[in-house]
Amino acid sequence: MKNWEKNVRKVEPYTPGEQPKNATVIKLNTNENPYPPAKGVYDAWKNFDVDKLRLYPDPAISKLVEKIADFYNLKKEQVFVGVGSDDVIAMSFLTFFNSNKPILFPDITYSFYDVWANMLRIPYEQVPLTKDFEIDPKDYKKDCGGIIFPNPNAPTGALLPLETVETIIKNNKEVLVIVDEAYIDFGGESATGLINKYDNVLVVQTFSKSRSMAGARIGFAIGNEKLIKYLNDVKYSFNSYTMNAMAIELGVKAIEDREYFEQTRNKIIETREWTKGELKKLGFSFKDSMSNFIFATHEKIPAKELFEALKKENIYVRYFSNPQRISNYLRISIGTDKQMKILIDFLKKYIEK
Amino acid sequence: MKNWEKNVRKVEPYTPGEQPKNATVIKLNTNENPYPPAKGVYDAWKNFDVDKLRLYPDPAISKLVEKIADFYNLKKEQVFVGVGSDDVIAMSFLTFFNSNKPILFPDITYSFYDVWANMLRIPYEQVPLTKDFEIDPKDYKKDCGGIIFPNPNAPTGALLPLETVETIIKNNKEVLVIVDEAYIDFGGESATGLINKYDNVLVVQTFSKSRSMAGARIGFAIGNEKLIKYLNDVKYSFNSYTMNAMAIELGVKAIEDREYFEQTRNKIIETREWTKGELKKLGFSFKDSMSNFIFATHEKIPAKELFEALKKENIYVRYFSNPQRISNYLRISIGTDKQMKILIDFLKKYIEK
Repeated sequence: MKNWEKNVRKVEPYTPGEQPKNATVIKLNTNENPYPPAKGVYDAWKNFDVDKLRLYPDPAISKLVEKIADFYNLKKEQVFVGVGSDDVIAMSFLTFFNSNKPILFPDITYSFYDVWANMLRIPYEQVPLTKDFEIDPKDYKKDCGGIIFPNPNAPTGALLPLETVETIIKNNKEVLVIVDEAYIDFGGESATGLINKYDNVLVVQTFSKSRSMAGARIGFAIGNEKLIKYLNDVKYSFNSYTMNAMAIELGVKAIEDREYFEQTRNKIIETREWTKGELKKLGFSFKDSMSNFIFATHEKIPAKELFEALKKENIYVRYFSNPQRISNYLRISIGTDKQMKILIDFLKKYIEK
Repeated sequence: MKNWEKNVRKVEPYTPGEQPKNATVIKLNTNENPYPPAKGVYDAWKNFDVDKLRLYPDPAISKLVEKIADFYNLKKEQVFVGVGSDDVIAMSFLTFFNSNKPILFPDITYSFYDVWANMLRIPYEQVPLTKDFEIDPKDYKKDCGGIIFPNPNAPTGALLPLETVETIIKNNKEVLVIVDEAYIDFGGESATGLINKYDNVLVVQTFSKSRSMAGARIGFAIGNEKLIKYLNDVKYSFNSYTMNAMAIELGVKAIEDREYFEQTRNKIIETREWTKGELKKLGFSFKDSMSNFIFATHEKIPAKELFEALKKENIYVRYFSNPQRISNYLRISIGTDKQMKILIDFLKKYIEK
């Protein structure tokens, strides 16, 4: 090994989910929205002034910050915008998790939390979910350096009622609690309403799921002005111009259209509930998901076998071989009615054969 | 102070350069390119499939990585792409500068290096430029944790010949040397040719200056496969989907058009040389800039006074009150011939009044 290599930050490289190039694939593996972006996004695209790309974008991302604040009835000083919620959470880890005490998150959860903690050398403790795959607030009532959990949790889809989220925040006023609400729009109640009551809660959301904009990379955090200021200070010390001019213009239009947002979100919920019924009939069991995916296990057929059979049919779902406790589950994103019908029809044939 | 605030990473917030909203301003303050992006960028914009924004972008950014590799006759494994060169350099600091020994960079240089080092708690030593504002390779021949310098240097514009860059790399084989070539296309010789000879050099460039794409946020690093792999591992541990779908498509077209690139770059060089002649006649002196800006001081009139007089005329240039050694200089970006003529005409009147 060369000497300079000794100074390299060695990390366990994270492998992102498969992005098949084949367009005929029914892609139910990365929780993308099956519907296109809002109409205004197309208009913004048409009206975009390409000449202006020669100039730097607004480092404060003001236009988009203001629109998000409008949507949630907040002040613009209570909103931070980043390049997807991964960027927002990574910046939050860097900004807020600097204690010698471990931060807490569930053992079965979004698989990036331990990656960030390892990379940034933040001590952490993975708190086991209950036997029933639930987050128990009592398990988070202890001395720690901070807390993060998704609500609904990933990949279980299980939702915590807002009172339970509030209990965790209230029990840990000495540290920051991050509520990762990537999937909250599909049936949960957001903790954004708590930010004026508690100064130790940061709520993170994304345009990637409920706003059909995964390709544009837009995430945001909501919290009290002080938290947002700290986050911006660190962002400005890392990269002042994170969000490109295109994402700012298109993002503004995506958040403006409340009607389309509600319509597509409701449609996905409807399709999810139909899919739940069908899966149950076929012998699957699962947590009552309040997200845009269902995390299901079959009474007889191993998840891995189903995963592979589906893949042969060009139907991609997500399978996690680790940790052991979830290795017999499939995470199935909610697509269009037509896509889900093809999935169910195939499973029916496969299971009954 | 609340307890959670004790765990906050406190930083000296960086304030980005002024972005006036008034469109009539002659903007010579942030080294942007006065010419629009290549024609292909407009075509890519027209042909972009907005529907696809619902999907995640390619985390490996393969299309763009391959085009950059093509342009420089490299393998794709020798190219890393990030959200502007600031993102690329910040990731490089995080990846490679983990020694207890200080990293070295010039005392007068790009003002982000010490910001990153402070934020990431990397020890550093600012090596004074010579009296003549030059980087002396002898000053970099010492035990250290790594080296970074821009070539040409910012904000002086002074270029190091490639042999001198090679001397610094050769003298420091035990550590990584980052050559920040944001301005190299305006008259310098790139160190990209050295990456097959030395495994300890990383060359960073950007689409923001010579490719008229500051608004799209595209930067890249070139180095041996091992370095690029380490960088990607850290990137995938921070945010797998950094570059949005729009930037990938437009970036491909921006790098493809070699002819337009050379034509606009040559035009800027021509305008710069004319501007140098005029500034000299007016009593300015400066390093012989090989970048898209001139860093000039006047024999009689203080820089701050000129800066303010220009601003009143709606001509924005950059003035740094710190450090002391450069507080009597203006950094003037090279605009169109017409813009530079307006600048020179005003200075003439002002100085001769």
